[in-house]
Order: sequence, then structure tokens, then C-alpha cells
Amino acid sequence: MSSKKGKKNYIKKKLYSRFSLAINITYAIALNEITTDYRKLRGLMKFEISATDGNARRGTLETRRGIINTPVFMPVGTLGTVKAMTPEELKDIGTEILLGNTYHLYLRPGTGPIKKLGGLHKFMNWDLPILTDSGGFQVFSLAPLRKIEENGVHFRSHIDGSLHLIGTTEAMKIQGILNSDIAMTFDECIPYPASYEYASKSVDLTTLWAGRCKRAQNSGQALFGIVQGGLFKDLRRKSSEEIINIGFDGYAVGGLSVGEPKEAMHEIIYFNAPILPADRPRYLMGIGDLGDMLKAVEAGFDMFDCVMPTRNARNGTLFTGSGKVSIKRAEFKSDDSPLDPDCGCYTCRNYSRGYLRHLFLSREILSMRMNTTHNLFFYLNFFKNMRESISKGSFRKFKDRWGAIFQ
Amino acid sequence: MSSKKGKKNYIKKKLYSRFSLAINITYAIALNEITTDYRKLRGLMKFEISATDGNARRGTLETRRGIINTPVFMPVGTLGTVKAMTPEELKDIGTEILLGNTYHLYLRPGTGPIKKLGGLHKFMNWDLPILTDSGGFQVFSLAPLRKIEENGVHFRSHIDGSLHLIGTTEAMKIQGILNSDIAMTFDECIPYPASYEYASKSVDLTTLWAGRCKRAQNSGQALFGIVQGGLFKDLRRKSSEEIINIGFDGYAVGGLSVGEPKEAMHEIIYFNAPILPADRPRYLMGIGDLGDMLKAVEAGFDMFDCVMPTRNARNGTLFTGSGKVSIKRAEFKSDDSPLDPDCGCYTCRNYSRGYLRHLFLSREILSMRMNTTHNLFFYLNFFKNMRESISKGSFRKFKDRWGAIFQ
Repeated sequence: MSSKKGKKNYIKKKLYSRFSLAINITYAIALNEITTDYRKLRGLMKFEISATDGNARRGTLETRRGIINTPVFMPVGTLGTVKAMTPEELKDIGTEILLGNTYHLYLRPGTGPIKKLGGLHKFMNWDLPILTDSGGFQVFSLAPLRKIEENGVHFRSHIDGSLHLIGTTEAMKIQGILNSDIAMTFDECIPYPASYEYASKSVDLTTLWAGRCKRAQNSGQALFGIVQGGLFKDLRRKSSEEIINIGFDGYAVGGLSVGEPKEAMHEIIYFNAPILPADRPRYLMGIGDLGDMLKAVEAGFDMFDCVMPTRNARNGTLFTGSGKVSIKRAEFKSDDSPLDPDCGCYTCRNYSRGYLRHLFLSREILSMRMNTTHNLFFYLNFFKNMRESISKGSFRKFKDRWGAIFQ
Repeated sequence: MSSKKGKKNYIKKKLYSRFSLAINITYAIALNEITTDYRKLRGLMKFEISATDGNARRGTLETRRGIINTPVFMPVGTLGTVKAMTPEELKDIGTEILLGNTYHLYLRPGTGPIKKLGGLHKFMNWDLPILTDSGGFQVFSLAPLRKIEENGVHFRSHIDGSLHLIGTTEAMKIQGILNSDIAMTFDECIPYPASYEYASKSVDLTTLWAGRCKRAQNSGQALFGIVQGGLFKDLRRKSSEEIINIGFDGYAVGGLSVGEPKEAMHEIIYFNAPILPADRPRYLMGIGDLGDMLKAVEAGFDMFDCVMPTRNARNGTLFTGSGKVSIKRAEFKSDDSPLDPDCGCYTCRNYSRGYLRHLFLSREILSMRMNTTHNLFFYLNFFKNMRESISKGSFRKFKDRWGAIFQ
């Protein structure tokens, strides 16, 4: 099926279902008034704020598999492994929660093996919390030939071209099998640029889907709702209100860092955070630039995930107290100093810039390991210091200092 | 320069230098009588045999950086890293000595950086013994456009095509900068098949070079001589006698596993071991098949190196108590048992076959790590048990049991 035809179908379907959407949303919201109360009793997740500094908050998020200190950075374990790292190494550098990708795990190895092997935690030998995304973002960003309908998205696997459907039912079912500690609702993540009309319809669809996901929430698994709305503040507000109305264990802001100018993204970050409930964790999805995260913490966000530290590591770009550094720089050839003299990670304690450069140029596996270890340590240590700055009331200073280095 | 012209030059040169070779060898041998005695006083390396079982020997090799239990398997760290492993992990699984490749390290990163960064040990953060080969094998097996002359081999880098010369002077100088604990003489490793005449001349050249290497031995660094001679027993005997006559800290047999039939190789293994001094370590170069090594230990060899466990690991071929296993087997898809239920390695203690299969099919870095960890553990544990069998006088039983699995 051509993507043109798919688009046509999509528009037809959307126009057709506009009225039914309105009814469905009303129904979803009504139903949720009940389930929210019920869920409160279950006490799936306890979120406590221990310090604030401006809008920045320090807190703890208590899940069934451990306590997470917020603001938190979640390393991404796309395919049931944070690339190049063992679970023990992740714990050693202070990882408290990982992110797993529903879309990727659904395609490889598939839910069958993971179910038989006891869920994602047992599968990958990780006993601390895992948050899974719903697959929405990857379906929209990776999969070719997608067709959006009210019941979900038809797409082709980016690996073998096979046809699949993921909707709210599938997203919740897969996340149930993965048995993550925090699941995400299935949402539509629109591209940039998008028209107001498209963004508006997408907010409606996302709300409809959020309600359905809520009703399909897996027992014992926390569920976060996702706010969409592109760069339109009124749509962001509308989406936020509708998602909050449904009621979730935490609230995420999606649909950013999809190609829009940084300034526009920052505006939505500052706009969206304070209109989300203060007593629930706020999660800014997929944003991992240190400068952006400083702004987001200032705005009041608590949770972050991104492949930036791990992917950059494999490409030889390392984060240091002096900013980003390319390890292949010729001047490092015979440099016996550590990558970052102020860093306490395994890599910086044991290896020289000269050796790291050599490993990288020789495409050695140890290069990916050592670079990933360093970058993740740098990120997690950055967050640790950021949390302390919030407790001390010096977040502003922290933000100014590091914001100047990682703009 | 064409390789045809190079070959012509090589033959001309060899014929021309035949007479001078004879003189040179006599000179080398004479000189060595002195240096051998001198070196004995230095006590670079103490080799003690603690048990024998037939011709199989168990012993300890004491170097300046630690004691090595023999028979020993040396993991290969081609470019200053055993692919996918950290030094700590290598120690954890019982590695007592590594092999470094002179040819590869000379080309990348080059001797400049390694010298400035304090030698190979400091460069790669490994404080136990290192044995370096002389570069001979790689020059003959990897480098294009080589031209063999009495003073060494002209070759082009397999990386960037640049022209280089490695002879005895260069091989000893590079190994001096690497500052390995055991260096190897620079030898000519002939291909299979080779004529008797070619093999004979090559033995002469190898003896000449061995004498020169001996005279250039680096202070504090042990030096092993290498026996050549192809599949010709009289040449093997001649080469052994000449190399022994020069006198080295240990004796290696090279030029095997270059394409010859297994039976022919085994015949040379059984022939060559007993004509090497019993009180010095005997090293069978580049042979890493478990079945072959069982035979070689039976013949009286003490030291081995090979990329087989590490390279196979990266290709998904794993060694187990039931033989070689391909981790991508479909039947492993949802298999929650460890790869080898009798194995105590980190991989087998923590991960299922299903997960290992998934990692391998997804080309994850952790796959290479976990597979390498397992294969090296299996090899080192195999050698540990083999040493114990020699002490207990049950080597024959050990050999029969494992020889049936790894033929």
C-alpha cells in the first residue's frame, strides 16, 4: 500500500471519526474518575518532593522495584541492554532506572521469548525499575508505511518489512508482558512542522488513546499519560487538561525535539511543566541535551531519557567538565592524562586519552565500553550534583555554570 | 613495485647470500655461547616443572611481572586490548599472561605513542606478563607486497598501504619499546605448501635472524627462539639444533597451522616437542584448537596462544562441555537455561541462552562481551583442569574425554 493512499485513508478516517471521538473522550474521562480513585488505593508509586529551588524540585519516586532519586536521567536500553554495558556496571555508576523500548522489543526478540523467559527484568538480568515507552514514538519515527487509524497504527517493521499493528490494546499488552514498572500510554507523536489542524486532531486522538490505555492498565504497573500538542500552547494546555483529567501516576510531555528550533522547544518546556500536577512526577520524553535538561529541571521536570550519552560515546564524542570532546583529536595521540581529570569513572581512573584515542581509531569494542562508561557516569554524576544543588538552594548557580559549557 | 619483481629480487638475494649466511650463523652461534652464560646470571625467567604425566608437564614460569602456571593459554590482545574485555575481567577469569602483536602495534598506534605512554603494560593498564610476537607471522600473512631480504622484510601496511621494513633490529627495538616480558625472535614463516629447498633456505635465514635477535636482546626482557622447517622433519631437527645452540629463555615452534593437513601438523607437533630442551618452556605458536592443544600438551608443549576463543565468540560460536555451539540456533529462542550448565563464568551465571541468542542476532556489543567472557573462561578453565590432571597422573583420561568432544 502506498503512503499516499495511507495518508488519504488517514484523513478520511479522522474526519469520519471526529464526532465519535468527542463522545469517546467524554466516556474515557468519566470512567477515569472512578479508576483514578481505585488506583490511588493501590498506591503503585509514591512520589515525594524533598526540596525545591524555584520551580526545580528534588524528590524520590518509590516504585515496586526500588527508589529513584529525581531529577533522574534514565539510560536507554533499547533492545534489552544498554549498549556496551552490563547491569552491574550500570548500577556501579548509579543508574536507578532504565528505559526499554516497546517497539524494538516487540520486533526483537518479540513478546513470546520475553514472556517465556520471565519478563524484561529477568530477560536482561536487571532488578531495578524499568520504564517502557509505548512504542508510539518509534512507530512514527522509524517504521515505514504507517497508517494511522482510531484503533492504532499499521506499520511495517524497519527490520524485515513485515506488517504490524500497534494500538492502545497492543501497547498495554506488550508492556504488560515486558512487565516494566512504569508503562506509558500510546500516543501520536506528530512531526515538525505540523499544521494547527493536524496537531489539534492528534491531541484528540492522543486523549482518546490515553483513556483506553488507562482502562487497560496492567495490575501492579504504574502508567504515565503523555501530553502532545506540538508547538501550540493552547493545544498543549488542552492536552494537559484532558490527560490530567483521566488521571495517571505521572505525566509526560512528548512530541518535542522532533526538528523544531531550540527556542520553540524551550518555550513549550517552560510552558508545559507548571500546568502539570505538582505532586506527580513530570517526565520530558527523549530530551537529553545537558543544556536542555537544565532548562527543563528549572521548569519543574523530574525525569529524562535519551540515547545521547550512549550513542555519542560510540561515535567518540565524550562529555567532560570542559564540554564535548572528540576522542579522535590528533593532539591526544601521546597524551597520558585522563580524559577528564575531575571525573571519577572507571575509564578516567584507568586509561589515558592516548589509549582511548587508539581504541577508538582501531574500532575496538573496549572503546565503546570505556566511552559509554564515561558518558553515562558523567550524566548520572551531573544529575547527582544537580539534585544536591536543589537541596542547597544553589540550582541557579549550577545551571549558570553548566549552562555556559553545554549551551 | 610488483610482487613478481619482489619475488625475483628475493630469489636473487637469497642465492647471493647463501655463503655469507653460513658464516653469519657460525658467528651468531659462537657469540651466543657467551651471551647465554651471561644471561643465565641475570635469571630473567625461572621455569620449574612440578609434575609430569608421560611427556605432558605441569610447571611454573616465573617472570618479572608474575608467575605463570603451565601449560598455559595466552589470550591474544592484538591491538593493546583483548577484544571486548577489560584487564580486570581477564584477571577475574584467571588470565596470567597476554599476547601482544608487534606488527599490529607498530602500525597502530605506532611505537611513538606507546613509548611516550610508558610501554604496552601502562598503555593498556595490564600489570601481569605480556609476551609479544616479533611481527614475523603477520608480515608474512597479512601484509601485501612483501620483499624478503637478509636484513628483513619490506612490506606495505594492510591498513594504509604505506611502506615499512621490519627486520631483526626493528623487531627487537619495537619489542623493547613495548617492553613485553617475553619477546620473540624475528623469523620467516613460510606458507603451505613449500618446497624442501625453500623451507631449507628459510631455516637458514631464521637461524641467522635468531642470532641477530639474540645479540640485540633487550635488557630485562626474556627472549624465545623460534624453530621453523615446514613439514620436513630433518629441517625441523636442524632448525631446532641451531636455535638451541644459540640459546634462548624458551623455545617456540612456528610455521604450523598455515593450511597443512591436521595429521601432518600433529606429526610435527609430536616430533618437535621432545627435541627441544626439557628444562625450558616450549611454546607452540598460534595453535588454539582444543583438540590440537591436547595433543601438543601430550607431546610436551607448555604455552599456547590463539584468537580462536575470542574470534569465535564474536561470531557466535561458543565452547561448552558438549562441544561447539552456535548461539543463533533457533531452538534457543525461548530457552531459559544457561549456555553451559556446568560453567561458572559470569555469562552462564547470569544469562539465558534465549537472551544470548537475542543479543547476538541484534548485534549488541554485550553479545561480544558475554560470548568472549564465556569462551575465554572455558579455555582457561580447561587449562586449569588439564594442569590438575597432569598433577594427578590422569592426563590421559582428561585427553581422551575432551579429545572425543573437540576432535
